[in-house]
Amino acid sequence: MSADVGNSVGHRQASLSATLGNDIVLVDPEEMLRFCRDWHGDVTSGAIAVLRPRSTQDVCAAVKLCRELGISIVPQGGNTGLVLGGIPDQPDAQVILSLERLNSVRRIDADDFSAVVEAGCVLSELKDRIAEKGMFFPLALGAQGSCRIGGNVATNAGGINVLRYGMTRELVLGLEVVLPDGTVFNGLSTLRKDNRGIDLKQLFIGSEGTLGIITAVSLKLTPLPDQIATALLGLNSLNDVMSLYRRARRQCCDLMSAFEFMPPLAFTLAKEAIPDLPIPMAADYPAYVLMEISGSGLIDISDLMQRFLAGVMEDGLVVDGVIAASEAQTRNLWKIREGMNEGQAKRGQHMRTDISVPLSRLADFVEDAEKAVSEALPTCVSVSYGHVGDGNVHLNVLPPQGSSKEEAAAMIYQAKTVVNGVVDRFSGSISAEHGIGRLKRADFEERLEPAHRHLLAALKRAIDPSMVMNPGCQLNFPDRS
Amino acid sequence: MSADVGNSVGHRQASLSATLGNDIVLVDPEEMLRFCRDWHGDVTSGAIAVLRPRSTQDVCAAVKLCRELGISIVPQGGNTGLVLGGIPDQPDAQVILSLERLNSVRRIDADDFSAVVEAGCVLSELKDRIAEKGMFFPLALGAQGSCRIGGNVATNAGGINVLRYGMTRELVLGLEVVLPDGTVFNGLSTLRKDNRGIDLKQLFIGSEGTLGIITAVSLKLTPLPDQIATALLGLNSLNDVMSLYRRARRQCCDLMSAFEFMPPLAFTLAKEAIPDLPIPMAADYPAYVLMEISGSGLIDISDLMQRFLAGVMEDGLVVDGVIAASEAQTRNLWKIREGMNEGQAKRGQHMRTDISVPLSRLADFVEDAEKAVSEALPTCVSVSYGHVGDGNVHLNVLPPQGSSKEEAAAMIYQAKTVVNGVVDRFSGSISAEHGIGRLKRADFEERLEPAHRHLLAALKRAIDPSMVMNPGCQLNFPDRS
Repeated sequence: MSADVGNSVGHRQASLSATLGNDIVLVDPEEMLRFCRDWHGDVTSGAIAVLRPRSTQDVCAAVKLCRELGISIVPQGGNTGLVLGGIPDQPDAQVILSLERLNSVRRIDADDFSAVVEAGCVLSELKDRIAEKGMFFPLALGAQGSCRIGGNVATNAGGINVLRYGMTRELVLGLEVVLPDGTVFNGLSTLRKDNRGIDLKQLFIGSEGTLGIITAVSLKLTPLPDQIATALLGLNSLNDVMSLYRRARRQCCDLMSAFEFMPPLAFTLAKEAIPDLPIPMAADYPAYVLMEISGSGLIDISDLMQRFLAGVMEDGLVVDGVIAASEAQTRNLWKIREGMNEGQAKRGQHMRTDISVPLSRLADFVEDAEKAVSEALPTCVSVSYGHVGDGNVHLNVLPPQGSSKEEAAAMIYQAKTVVNGVVDRFSGSISAEHGIGRLKRADFEERLEPAHRHLLAALKRAIDPSMVMNPGCQLNFPDRS
Repeated sequence: MSADVGNSVGHRQASLSATLGNDIVLVDPEEMLRFCRDWHGDVTSGAIAVLRPRSTQDVCAAVKLCRELGISIVPQGGNTGLVLGGIPDQPDAQVILSLERLNSVRRIDADDFSAVVEAGCVLSELKDRIAEKGMFFPLALGAQGSCRIGGNVATNAGGINVLRYGMTRELVLGLEVVLPDGTVFNGLSTLRKDNRGIDLKQLFIGSEGTLGIITAVSLKLTPLPDQIATALLGLNSLNDVMSLYRRARRQCCDLMSAFEFMPPLAFTLAKEAIPDLPIPMAADYPAYVLMEISGSGLIDISDLMQRFLAGVMEDGLVVDGVIAASEAQTRNLWKIREGMNEGQAKRGQHMRTDISVPLSRLADFVEDAEKAVSEALPTCVSVSYGHVGDGNVHLNVLPPQGSSKEEAAAMIYQAKTVVNGVVDRFSGSISAEHGIGRLKRADFEERLEPAHRHLLAALKRAIDPSMVMNPGCQLNFPDRS
């Protein structure tokens, strides 16, 4: 009996608090709630406790104690993930370890084109601090006001600037990681080139907390672009969008920083979310592109955009277009993109996807997948948009308005099966940028080749033999050895 | 006795030939010589055999057979490595597995901005094939006429365009790898974004053949730059070179594709190698920069270079400069850079290094390191040059002409100790781009932190528990488990 009591949640909470202190250990359900509920509010879980360390040493102590107590750890950054990677699935066996208090900017060095920051820094605040020094950190995504850099690295976040600057992986120079045994891997160098053996930091980038806890990051910076030109363009087809992208890559050199496609429905959805949003163009073209060129220094970016558009309009590739003439107009154009997402949310429960396919097959994929959805679910509406340069499509499916919760859930389940089937035919990915977490684990495991699974399991056993780190995320590994 | 005979080199050669065939297995010492001698000709080793598979399936068969026979495998691409990663150090226990016959271009797809190629493709030939389709593969290094893409990936090769396009790692979309158990990891996708769990290909990039054999690669392509502007500039100091770099990054946007610094001695050395090489500038400035801006499309690259140089010359940051007015002149400017290397080789045995330091400390590092060398070895000459944007310095030390082989070797050994000490003080890397191989293993191991070593050993045991793959390269791991 005493062993059972000794292993109860209450007992483990007491052990955590006694050793780590009440400042670090939250056990009150009210206080824990915001850590236990996911970004969309779809899932609310629980945890033995939420640990809020203030330093790397605190994280080490927490990891060592959890190992002793037989508790596993779900690391969490800004809790903005979309695949439940930071939400416990075994509330009685897991703690959440929040990095939000490790939020110091250790160094921003414009001469070194680098910054060294702690995992809990909020992305947009970090970008602002870096901009004050005339530098730029290119990662840009919808959640940037809440997400934290450690989570961005752990999930290898994407976003709208990937086409020019790469995924988060390509923006990381170094990492500090607390390993599953509670020791620290010190890899916080700012060297641009370092070929001393296998690059261990790559393992942790995108591992979603399954191999260790990222506590600090060295980032690659670029000069702050002081000129930005943004245009909204109307085109006759998604095939024309792809032709425009290829031409833009060539003609605008490598200075294009965003190239998003949207369907005409984007305007309707954006208006539903933001009724007074000005829409500067007719909504009757089959496809739209939001395009941004940016740069610093001696190149006239606005002139480049104008000359590019003059050519493609003369050739009929672009039918209609507006270039933002002010910062306010630029913000409004981006609000269409953002409002489109909010409008979908307002229509209620719907299927969200995060697909990538080879760039050359994007238009065909969207056509095939939307057709498959409309055949299987004629009352649903498909909304496809995304980051053309990355072959990344968010093909979402909205059940008809007025559907019951159960009806919507059934349609979403069916839509997912239909779309994933098309993704497989196109050799695409079911997670281009959001990760696997717990939400996509089954779909991921189902598609894993044996050699791939074998390597992942071998890696996990090698680095986290006690299976302390984020069990249930990405893969269901065998129990601890 | 029979056990000994059964395990003799001759017996194992016979077993290899019998199973894999004489077409694939070379055992004649003459024929094996070019595979067993390193690029600089410093080291000539041997091997049980050289295996030359023609397909991925052949590689699988070879790996399985070697495991059975208790033979370990040293993979080799173009044999242009500079750190002996592809040269056996246990000739009686190792085979060389050459990838040179796996040299098909499986696909070049301009619309997909990608290519899928086999490991044995020669880099320059590949670049030419890709250019024929109007596309560009940016990896560029001295050995490109001989090195092969599989080796470039296995060593994460750097080169002169890294500042704009990144190391080889950033140019790879996917890999096909034969694992140490003879199975195949199929990761040859061309997706630009794919966040399905841990990115396994990152493990093999830069692993120098210690975890598996790369048999094919998917590459990221960009539009072929159709405008290139190249300039040779004279400056008053290395500090001015660093200021110029920072200004160029900002003012030339991200369009700078090379920024190399050289000392005045570069001209002398280049002339020693190529006596009729035209040198278009006086050799009496303390520092030189070879700078390239490139791009495609609507930006006037030559005008950009001219406006940039006008500004920096007006401000006195650049004292003298020439812009190449023809392709022939461009080639001649690059010949100074290449001739400088050949000139060093002509002066005989010397110390070559491949150092990186934080970008902001490059000028201080060169000053300190050259001073330390001249104090310790006053008769030697230091030549520092390299890739400024990457913080990558090749600080070489030339013993005085007429030194005996033994004298030169002693001075080289001492110079290395002195320079490595300065590298450590600057938190630099002793291998920025060449890798560790066997040449730098001891220096690498000496500097490894325990957590780092522990992770590397755990990884090796996880993926290559039988220690079949390139033992002796990067680290001396414990014997096979």
